Amino acid sequence: MALIVQKYGGTSMGSPERIRNVAQRVARFRDAGHQVVVVVSAMSGETNRLIALAKEIQAHPDPRELDVVISTGEQVTIGLLSMALKEAGVDAKSYTGAQVRILTDDIFNKARILDIESANLRRDLDAGKVIVVAGFQGVDAAGNITTLGRGGSDTTGVALAAALSADECQIYTDVDGVYTTDPRIVPEARKLDTITFEEMLEMASLGSKVLQIRSVEFAGKYKVKLRVLSSFQDEGEGTLITVEESKKMEEPIISGIAFNRDEAKLTMQGVPDRPGIAYQILGPVADANIDVDMIIQNVGHDGTTDFSFTVNRSEFEKAKAVLEGVRQHIGAREIVGDNKVCKVSAVGVGMRSHPGVASKMFRVLAEEGINIRMISTSEIKISVVLDEKYLELAVRVLHRAFDLDQPKA
Amino acid sequence: MALIVQKYGGTSMGSPERIRNVAQRVARFRDAGHQVVVVVSAMSGETNRLIALAKEIQAHPDPRELDVVISTGEQVTIGLLSMALKEAGVDAKSYTGAQVRILTDDIFNKARILDIESANLRRDLDAGKVIVVAGFQGVDAAGNITTLGRGGSDTTGVALAAALSADECQIYTDVDGVYTTDPRIVPEARKLDTITFEEMLEMASLGSKVLQIRSVEFAGKYKVKLRVLSSFQDEGEGTLITVEESKKMEEPIISGIAFNRDEAKLTMQGVPDRPGIAYQILGPVADANIDVDMIIQNVGHDGTTDFSFTVNRSEFEKAKAVLEGVRQHIGAREIVGDNKVCKVSAVGVGMRSHPGVASKMFRVLAEEGINIRMISTSEIKISVVLDEKYLELAVRVLHRAFDLDQPKA
Repeated sequence: MALIVQKYGGTSMGSPERIRNVAQRVARFRDAGHQVVVVVSAMSGETNRLIALAKEIQAHPDPRELDVVISTGEQVTIGLLSMALKEAGVDAKSYTGAQVRILTDDIFNKARILDIESANLRRDLDAGKVIVVAGFQGVDAAGNITTLGRGGSDTTGVALAAALSADECQIYTDVDGVYTTDPRIVPEARKLDTITFEEMLEMASLGSKVLQIRSVEFAGKYKVKLRVLSSFQDEGEGTLITVEESKKMEEPIISGIAFNRDEAKLTMQGVPDRPGIAYQILGPVADANIDVDMIIQNVGHDGTTDFSFTVNRSEFEKAKAVLEGVRQHIGAREIVGDNKVCKVSAVGVGMRSHPGVASKMFRVLAEEGINIRMISTSEIKISVVLDEKYLELAVRVLHRAFDLDQPKA
Repeated sequence: MALIVQKYGGTSMGSPERIRNVAQRVARFRDAGHQVVVVVSAMSGETNRLIALAKEIQAHPDPRELDVVISTGEQVTIGLLSMALKEAGVDAKSYTGAQVRILTDDIFNKARILDIESANLRRDLDAGKVIVVAGFQGVDAAGNITTLGRGGSDTTGVALAAALSADECQIYTDVDGVYTTDPRIVPEARKLDTITFEEMLEMASLGSKVLQIRSVEFAGKYKVKLRVLSSFQDEGEGTLITVEESKKMEEPIISGIAFNRDEAKLTMQGVPDRPGIAYQILGPVADANIDVDMIIQNVGHDGTTDFSFTVNRSEFEKAKAVLEGVRQHIGAREIVGDNKVCKVSAVGVGMRSHPGVASKMFRVLAEEGINIRMISTSEIKISVVLDEKYLELAVRVLHRAFDLDQPKA
């Protein structure tokens, strides 16, 4: 008997018919003798509908009240799935984030989980119940309803798995695993049987969109065995996200090509080159709750330097306004930006032991006449910022160049 | 400075535009120096939509999980109205039933309020905030979400007014007050300036549908000054529901003609006429959570009697099944029923001091050839059960016969 946490996304909960299918799957795990905790998202489209409703009232909805409104999406699906389970003969009980007591900080719309009370859940599990928990939501210490931000249900699933010391956390989604890249762009993309947490982190943050990045961090930190599976297929082992690197001799150097379409880049030119300047620029950006992705500062000359970073395209104007205030304060020359860029990355733990990956990547792009606008590297990935129009071409040629379309030996 | 509780129904919350209108009205009361607590229903149609969704999953939804699902309707509107108030420059804060801690019993779908914690609300009121509370919902002692049944938002409003010792509880609805009868059936129906709690109780329970009956009981018990107003008119004093009878000389004998279309009647024939038999019949009906309305038992003969009662039409089949079990147990002869009946009642505290109201009512109906199927009377009302087809005719002729279409002196 194992304790399994299963997380189902909005597509899996998208209709009464699909909810019944999820109940059937959960019932099979229960019948096989497992204890099951299910974490669900809102029905697909519901969170967006609620946000749109809020914006009809207030262009920038009050953050506390927005969480009150949008947390209802998951509250509906926990009730519906519990009903479907009972209808399938499985004793089930729903829990909102507040009822579990998923304690978070008080940053509305982007809260972080601080603690989870597991005593009630354990008692119900031991009594033979399937537990259905609302993803994406919690409460702060004052009892206010909070939400975890987009994709937060994945984080709820992993955090619950950690709190309950579950044997596995299964993330059911509309893909059957993690691919070498997006099959819509490269039909030859292959499913990976395993991927390391580190690689998955790079893939997720770079836009592979299979899992929310925080959930992967969480899983790595608390050693939660995490598996991505399709909720529309009964067969298949999905992709297991592992702590250890694969030891196979034939391990490919690169595990996948990730990309992000919705990027914007900002450069502050003529920044006085003195200690603490990076903090002076990025501090106000962080204070404005803008997530910064790539950060690049080149060596300066003439006592000044250029400082660049990328943000999500939706935060381009906001970031630009913040930077303008900073520019005047620190006496930099000019802000230039471009919100028509994308990021493409080659990811793989293999590149640690294989030099030459970066130069190969640059050569392949050059051969296609694609101009590289920014470069950033880490231990296990190389990212380039390109004009958005080159995205598909770049992904395809890199996928082929690193032999990702070849079946494994 | 007064403390006012205002309750807005689903029609008043039916669109972003209407929610803004409610915010404007609340803002005017605030600007006039009052403290305001607002209780809201779900957007019109939302509760029915959620129930339909639940029934797609489970024909008879699990009661606990149904409350989890349907309580989201009010959670959405408290958030939206708080946003609208902030947008109108009024500091506001939303509370779910659980956040207030509106403690109820654990009868899901039909819970009763046991206690309300008012300390947090008072602190926020004293800090100058408008409080927006979700109607219709509470929590039981174990922290499960409960709902109060149809119209429960009125009860929430009155219970909050009582707990906070509010100066007035204003129920905003789509009518501008309580009428002598339904103007859709009798165009000459007039609005009443005042009505006593007792009359209102009879009017409400008989189907006038302006206020939920429990809210009126509550208001009477805790001496809450209750007023029914239109949320679509800025003028008008509505109808004040008073503890005392009007002292006016010209007081009419009858205040209004109430009716209920959705009735069903059940008769158990040949019931052994012995002590405790009424309890033996109605105990199981109450245990099945079926609300019984009129109860009639006539004098028996040959050691048996006939026992009749009415229920809401939607509970006819369920009640019949319960009765069949009882019949076999107590050895009664037969169950007969009719679910095509209606109830029409003349209500008025004036009839206490004016004999002959009943005989006048029966005469008027006889003159129209309307057969009376059951009769029941109280201190301040006379109810008759009729074939449903006579409803409109009976209401019209009684309204005229008791001079309700005449302007007051």
